Amino acid sequence: MQHRSVFFISDGTGITAESVGHLLAHFPTVSFKHIRLPFTDSEQKVEEALVKIAETEKADGVRPIVVMTLVNTDLRDKLKQSNAVHLDVFGSFVDPLAEELQEQPSRTSGIAHSVLGNSYYERIDAINFTLNHDDGMTDFGLSEAQVILVGVSRCGKTPTSLYLAMQFGIKAANYPLIPEDLERGTLPEALKKYPEKLYGLSINPERLHSVRSERRPDSHYASLDNCRHEIRLAEDLMHREGISWIDSTSRSIEELSTIILQKIRVNSNH
Amino acid sequence: MQHRSVFFISDGTGITAESVGHLLAHFPTVSFKHIRLPFTDSEQKVEEALVKIAETEKADGVRPIVVMTLVNTDLRDKLKQSNAVHLDVFGSFVDPLAEELQEQPSRTSGIAHSVLGNSYYERIDAINFTLNHDDGMTDFGLSEAQVILVGVSRCGKTPTSLYLAMQFGIKAANYPLIPEDLERGTLPEALKKYPEKLYGLSINPERLHSVRSERRPDSHYASLDNCRHEIRLAEDLMHREGISWIDSTSRSIEELSTIILQKIRVNSNH
Repeated sequence: MQHRSVFFISDGTGITAESVGHLLAHFPTVSFKHIRLPFTDSEQKVEEALVKIAETEKADGVRPIVVMTLVNTDLRDKLKQSNAVHLDVFGSFVDPLAEELQEQPSRTSGIAHSVLGNSYYERIDAINFTLNHDDGMTDFGLSEAQVILVGVSRCGKTPTSLYLAMQFGIKAANYPLIPEDLERGTLPEALKKYPEKLYGLSINPERLHSVRSERRPDSHYASLDNCRHEIRLAEDLMHREGISWIDSTSRSIEELSTIILQKIRVNSNH
Repeated sequence: MQHRSVFFISDGTGITAESVGHLLAHFPTVSFKHIRLPFTDSEQKVEEALVKIAETEKADGVRPIVVMTLVNTDLRDKLKQSNAVHLDVFGSFVDPLAEELQEQPSRTSGIAHSVLGNSYYERIDAINFTLNHDDGMTDFGLSEAQVILVGVSRCGKTPTSLYLAMQFGIKAANYPLIPEDLERGTLPEALKKYPEKLYGLSINPERLHSVRSERRPDSHYASLDNCRHEIRLAEDLMHREGISWIDSTSRSIEELSTIILQKIRVNSNH
């Protein structure tokens, strides 16, 4: 197996650079070692980075990959003196944008992930809302929710809600469908006012059995029979109530969130 | 103010494309309207995208910007027939990487944010750990934490812990320093075993007063005098215990997490 070191070098957090680094997943036969050098925002720090890159090349016997987001063009040019392969995110995208927009880009480092960028406080509010409305914790304030995820216990509602809040600033409540709801065959009372906000998650019974067994092995709750029973009743209920749902079994929280976002049609301005 | 429409078009979730879109924050004088077209993975869907781009150009009176991550080269070429400015993330980065690595990139759509990519289940485990160890909820399992954030109530511990878990797969517990700890002048008993895991957050008193006042206006808890008192005692305590801390006042959770990550020196292989 091929091994490669990848540096993420940024004058800010390096989070944009690392996001681009997700593309490395398209080379599953290569083993990548990630090295983060955030806040590389001075000549001295770039020099230190150059030393590390050179040392790494020597140790690896092959040149490293550098994914870089530096706003300062002098620092960018200096870093590119390394012998690495440079994936220059700023050079590739911000420079052409500046030309298209006929605007000089702000040279403030790290603006993309600062409290100034991307509706930061809206996202923090959404995270707090989501934590306070996890697992049907309270009905108070549900009217503020942009989406309310429903489904049986442990089908993925909580991490999906948090991802929606953290990444997209969506106020996402979640509410479990518990055995009492399922046997009664109706939605929890608190949800009946918000049919347009409801979105369902389901899961395959074998997977649910395995997830629940990690928490409560050998319980009725985790048994395959009970998982099958709960899921069947939950899907029947959602069907009767006209609630769309998606199967979380082999989908990541990123994929689930993206599908839900399409559904609730949020084309925001940020 | 200049207005521009930006399309994020991907055969997967579009999350990598949107991350690149964070760079738009470097043009603060332009108002961008975001339009997400995830799961654009067929000729028909690309054709639909082309129609939307053309309609948007007509409505805006100026050509849109397209940030695109498509693995299929035919679909990529087809999309580039639009009159927009194309920022082709795959073409810019994956193609040069393929040449450098001498490997064909996987043509599976959306691999970067699927359950296959980027240590997905490790991140989900970390999110669950972090939720179960929020706000000193339990001492059980603290030995598994990779970091334990400490600080006064409402200084930013919870969202920072969640970001560390969600983005980096770090098991991040957090533990409040409550008035009883502060008056006693010693750490909570449960933390004394883990000095090497502790990391502090602090905040300026005016900001803390404002944050706490949103929750409990006119309380002793939120009063500026009490905020000053708690912060002084907390910083004294952290200083005596040799705990590093950072000021969360004007830092985003991305910036705080990045600084903490540097501190705990996680250079992982994913």
